[in-house]
Amino acid sequence: MASVLILMGSQSDWPTMQKAALMLDDLGVDWQAKVASAHRTPDLLKSHMEQAEIDDVKVVIAGAGGAAHLPGMLAAHTAIPVLGVPVASKQLKGMDSLLSIVQMPKGVAVGTLAIGDAGAANAGLLAAQIIGSFDATVRERVIQFRQQQRDKVMANADLELPK
Amino acid sequence: MASVLILMGSQSDWPTMQKAALMLDDLGVDWQAKVASAHRTPDLLKSHMEQAEIDDVKVVIAGAGGAAHLPGMLAAHTAIPVLGVPVASKQLKGMDSLLSIVQMPKGVAVGTLAIGDAGAANAGLLAAQIIGSFDATVRERVIQFRQQQRDKVMANADLELPK
Amino acid sequence: MASVLILMGSQSDWPTMQKAALMLDDLGVDWQAKVASAHRTPDLLKSHMEQAEIDDVKVVIAGAGGAAHLPGMLAAHTAIPVLGVPVASKQLKGMDSLLSIVQMPKGVAVGTLAIGDAGAANAGLLAAQIIGSFDATVRERVIQFRQQQRDKVMANADLELPK
Amino acid sequence: MASVLILMGSQSDWPTMQKAALMLDDLGVDWQAKVASAHRTPDLLKSHMEQAEIDDVKVVIAGAGGAAHLPGMLAAHTAIPVLGVPVASKQLKGMDSLLSIVQMPKGVAVGTLAIGDAGAANAGLLAAQIIGSFDATVRERVIQFRQQQRDKVMANADLELPK
Amino acid sequence: MASVLILMGSQSDWPTMQKAALMLDDLGVDWQAKVASAHRTPDLLKSHMEQAEIDDVKVVIAGAGGAAHLPGMLAAHTAIPVLGVPVASKQLKGMDSLLSIVQMPKGVAVGTLAIGDAGAANAGLLAAQIIGSFDATVRERVIQFRQQQRDKVMANADLELPK
Amino acid sequence: MASVLILMGSQSDWPTMQKAALMLDDLGVDWQAKVASAHRTPDLLKSHMEQAEIDDVKVVIAGAGGAAHLPGMLAAHTAIPVLGVPVASKQLKGMDSLLSIVQMPKGVAVGTLAIGDAGAANAGLLAAQIIGSFDATVRERVIQFRQQQRDKVMANADLELPK
Amino acid sequence: MASVLILMGSQSDWPTMQKAALMLDDLGVDWQAKVASAHRTPDLLKSHMEQAEIDDVKVVIAGAGGAAHLPGMLAAHTAIPVLGVPVASKQLKGMDSLLSIVQMPKGVAVGTLAIGDAGAANAGLLAAQIIGSFDATVRERVIQFRQQQRDKVMANADLELPK
Amino acid sequence: MASVLILMGSQSDWPTMQKAALMLDDLGVDWQAKVASAHRTPDLLKSHMEQAEIDDVKVVIAGAGGAAHLPGMLAAHTAIPVLGVPVASKQLKGMDSLLSIVQMPKGVAVGTLAIGDAGAANAGLLAAQIIGSFDATVRERVIQFRQQQRDKVMANADLELPK
Repeated sequence: MASVLILMGSQSDWPTMQKAALMLDDLGVDWQAKVASAHRTPDLLKSHMEQAEIDDVKVVIAGAGGAAHLPGMLAAHTAIPVLGVPVASKQLKGMDSLLSIVQMPKGVAVGTLAIGDAGAANAGLLAAQIIGSFDATVRERVIQFRQQQRDKVMANADLELPK
Repeated sequence: MASVLILMGSQSDWPTMQKAALMLDDLGVDWQAKVASAHRTPDLLKSHMEQAEIDDVKVVIAGAGGAAHLPGMLAAHTAIPVLGVPVASKQLKGMDSLLSIVQMPKGVAVGTLAIGDAGAANAGLLAAQIIGSFDATVRERVIQFRQQQRDKVMANADLELPK
Repeated sequence: MASVLILMGSQSDWPTMQKAALMLDDLGVDWQAKVASAHRTPDLLKSHMEQAEIDDVKVVIAGAGGAAHLPGMLAAHTAIPVLGVPVASKQLKGMDSLLSIVQMPKGVAVGTLAIGDAGAANAGLLAAQIIGSFDATVRERVIQFRQQQRDKVMANADLELPK
Repeated sequence: MASVLILMGSQSDWPTMQKAALMLDDLGVDWQAKVASAHRTPDLLKSHMEQAEIDDVKVVIAGAGGAAHLPGMLAAHTAIPVLGVPVASKQLKGMDSLLSIVQMPKGVAVGTLAIGDAGAANAGLLAAQIIGSFDATVRERVIQFRQQQRDKVMANADLELPK
Repeated sequence: MASVLILMGSQSDWPTMQKAALMLDDLGVDWQAKVASAHRTPDLLKSHMEQAEIDDVKVVIAGAGGAAHLPGMLAAHTAIPVLGVPVASKQLKGMDSLLSIVQMPKGVAVGTLAIGDAGAANAGLLAAQIIGSFDATVRERVIQFRQQQRDKVMANADLELPK
Repeated sequence: MASVLILMGSQSDWPTMQKAALMLDDLGVDWQAKVASAHRTPDLLKSHMEQAEIDDVKVVIAGAGGAAHLPGMLAAHTAIPVLGVPVASKQLKGMDSLLSIVQMPKGVAVGTLAIGDAGAANAGLLAAQIIGSFDATVRERVIQFRQQQRDKVMANADLELPK
Repeated sequence: MASVLILMGSQSDWPTMQKAALMLDDLGVDWQAKVASAHRTPDLLKSHMEQAEIDDVKVVIAGAGGAAHLPGMLAAHTAIPVLGVPVASKQLKGMDSLLSIVQMPKGVAVGTLAIGDAGAANAGLLAAQIIGSFDATVRERVIQFRQQQRDKVMANADLELPK
Repeated sequence: MASVLILMGSQSDWPTMQKAALMLDDLGVDWQAKVASAHRTPDLLKSHMEQAEIDDVKVVIAGAGGAAHLPGMLAAHTAIPVLGVPVASKQLKGMDSLLSIVQMPKGVAVGTLAIGDAGAANAGLLAAQIIGSFDATVRERVIQFRQQQRDKVMANADLELPK
């Protein structure tokens, strides 16, 4: 009964989408990952979303590349908030993935993150922030994560020039 | 029991998609048009495609704009060939529609036409050519249409300069 | 003490961002709207976010155009989830706004919606879905809104051709 | 007397276009492949298409890169449906190939697939679907191929995280 | 027996291509204009180019929009130098026309000018420069035209500010 | 008390931003480099700029990639002129960085240089030119650097063809 | 003997470039504006820059559109810092102007502002900031201008919803 | 006293521009190659073009990358026809080079070829075609080169599938 469900169009998206899972681990949020292709297994999408509602999943994270329909089609099947990660495509470098995910018509929304690894990690972070809006423990972990980032930047704040 | 089924994501796509219907009329191919939104009525897509298979529809034409998922999702639900028309979007002028329709992953195909009116008309023409590959009467009409086009160009072949 | 805080870089963004407010009204979620420019009033961002945390704001929606820094800079100042709306820019039609908002580095996340009005409305919808993940009344209203959309599509499902 | 004729602008396009041939093999559709450059051997295009009509070819698949004129010029010479595959170009990654193939004017249509290997494979698939609309044996094979894809996704549906 | 032959894909390209004709008039170079669609009248291209060689045409100027194949296909049929003008397209503003014309493969060349009116005028100018490389009278007229341009700029060189 | 302050969003930007430092060294302008992330350490930006004003820094150079907010946010906090360097991003090759930096709204300005190493070097050069407008010694060094470049080009002005 | 010289490629750029002049007026910096086309009057560029150096011009602002060579060519002729304004072009909306100005090679720098009016105004502002780095009176005016902007934003900080 | 003068912005452009020289060698047209940077040696451009006019050069070929000003600036200084080759740039893959060369304003023309090696080779070919319009020997060699290309394509016209 994980709080976050991570779905991806193909197993080959896992190296990217794993970054979402690792971020959720860091923030102490439980997750579950599944492969569900919008194009190859369209019937699965609805049943996945119905099960997610039964399981009281709080956030769905979906990643896909190219003509990326998975995040939008999941959003079409559920009232659970859906976050989309544009996986980098071979030729167009994820510009196709980005536009296919973000340019949704009025009435079905996907909160879209950056192309590739950074976007996947941030999908995990944003899911934790969403849960943290209603769960003080998770919010506290997000705040600590931010503080650690800040500390890391400040530890390296004065560069020396290795000519 | 039309040979071609025209689907579009929203009634606002009709001024564009109508060009497909008019071309099919010109070529004597019967068609039927319906609105079916991938995002707002996802369950309809499968039943539309099941009905189309029962009705022995030969070609599906689907038009949508922005993060255009309709053509790809219809293709996911049927073995009938699907042609996609990228409807021009307000801000990105259909570049988002085009990439969302054409960049399909291996295993689910959409034959994509040009953005906007020309693409819709050509979807009608290509559907007729597909049927014409197996139906000599329709093929003959396509050949005549082509001849008429040629005649029209040649009638205007020598321009005079209106300074 | 609204659940959703809508911020925008300039009053000229209101015709777009108002679509978020109207959607929240439709879904019975209370909101508050303010102008806060990342570039002209950078000090305000932090105090707005501190106040939002005191007020227990659940979601921040931020819209901006061009080199759109507001959503990302708000996200830098708070653990509240931030949704970003790329406002269409005059020359590049919001492609600059989109990339400036969505391409955030790992560690600070913005859930980005479509360019322009549809994106703003969907920011309101996604905010309601986020709240609905923890509030059954709001979730119910989201589900009803979705049903109404579906009904509207189906009422218009069979087009006739106005030649 | 193959049902599908595969043409490409240069032998260097074969690693891509071969994916169409392999897909047709998988689906039990016979094909023939030829090199015919729109720019270097323009006179060949017409005679190839005339021969294809004599041979009762059902679908032409054409691939080319850069200022890719082959698919459109073949379509200009025949009523047989033409599918176009944008071969990835060195600098612009196939964006030039895509626009040169898909943006055809009203009156001459090319059903365009994705850039590169996935597009070539899908051209083979779509050709089989077109033939399958009129040939129950081929359609059955397409349906089985789809089922196999589905099975493969479902066999891998629950990922485990290799940290 | 004009020195420059202007061809365009459709009569609707004339308002743009006329700028080439007007420039040639200004520079005292004789021209002839014809409509010849690469897609609708492919057979005409070869005969036009054969006639042009008989007529000793020195430069061919070809304009087209969208998936613009006319300049490249003319170049495929003749050793006369071909200049290409990307006519602005409705949705993609001529970016498709530009890439379809300029990105020719090695072995068939098109000298491409800017999108739209400026490009058409410059095609006329470049044609005159080409002829002027071998004809001192034409070269002298080009030099005078340049001088007039220079004089016009210098006459307006000191702006006053109309607040 | 350096004349130029170089800031970058992350230590990983140093290989690029070092080119600014090396150019300043070549031109005898003193500099100082620091890491300050707009997103991870937003509060630092203001204090850095306040210190820079106290130290009488003449020019700030800021580099960042992706949704690059650092240059614009620094400019929001100071009246010292800010030059921005778009660091190349992994997927979109710095097009996102460029638009995020250059497309600033009226009222807060960033003088933007080219993407990547050339842009960083030129940021150093432009900073020296700015200082040189008020300091004859620095200006003289800029003029000498230009002369050296010129000499280098002219020494290689006649290529021989290594077939 | 103005501190800032504004140059533009054509008188038609004045409606844009005037925004730089108006900003300089607001900030009490004297300026002079001239038309000098890189392409039509290349010889003028050098003499303009030589005169500017004699006149002790502190900053050159140059605006041009399309294949915009003016800012870069001025920078090639002087050690005075050059700011570039990409004037919006008809078809490509200034994307061509932007890339032609900003992507300068190492060794000749142009500080580039946003496309169009905002960029021109900001070129004026940045020129004033550059002068203000060495002139306390001008710096004070820049700081006041910033304060006025801030006050204007804050006066409108709480929007009401005109439904 | 070569018929064609090849100029490039930097010696690093030679691997690309050499393709023009090799094509001219193949077609028996004499050429000369020089480095002349628009930005680093602006004064050279005019003297090069004056010398070219004295030497009766028939065509100038100019290659440059990024904010590529060389072809346009040469065209500004001469009535000899100028062909431009966009050299591929590191980040934007020559899209910046292409737009900087092709989008010339009315009154100064550059005949632009494809990005990179193919474009350079075609610049050599087009130069030969231009000379061939007035020199039957060169034209004959162009026609033979075309024939050889055709023969090469036809020798490989029937591919076999290496599975």
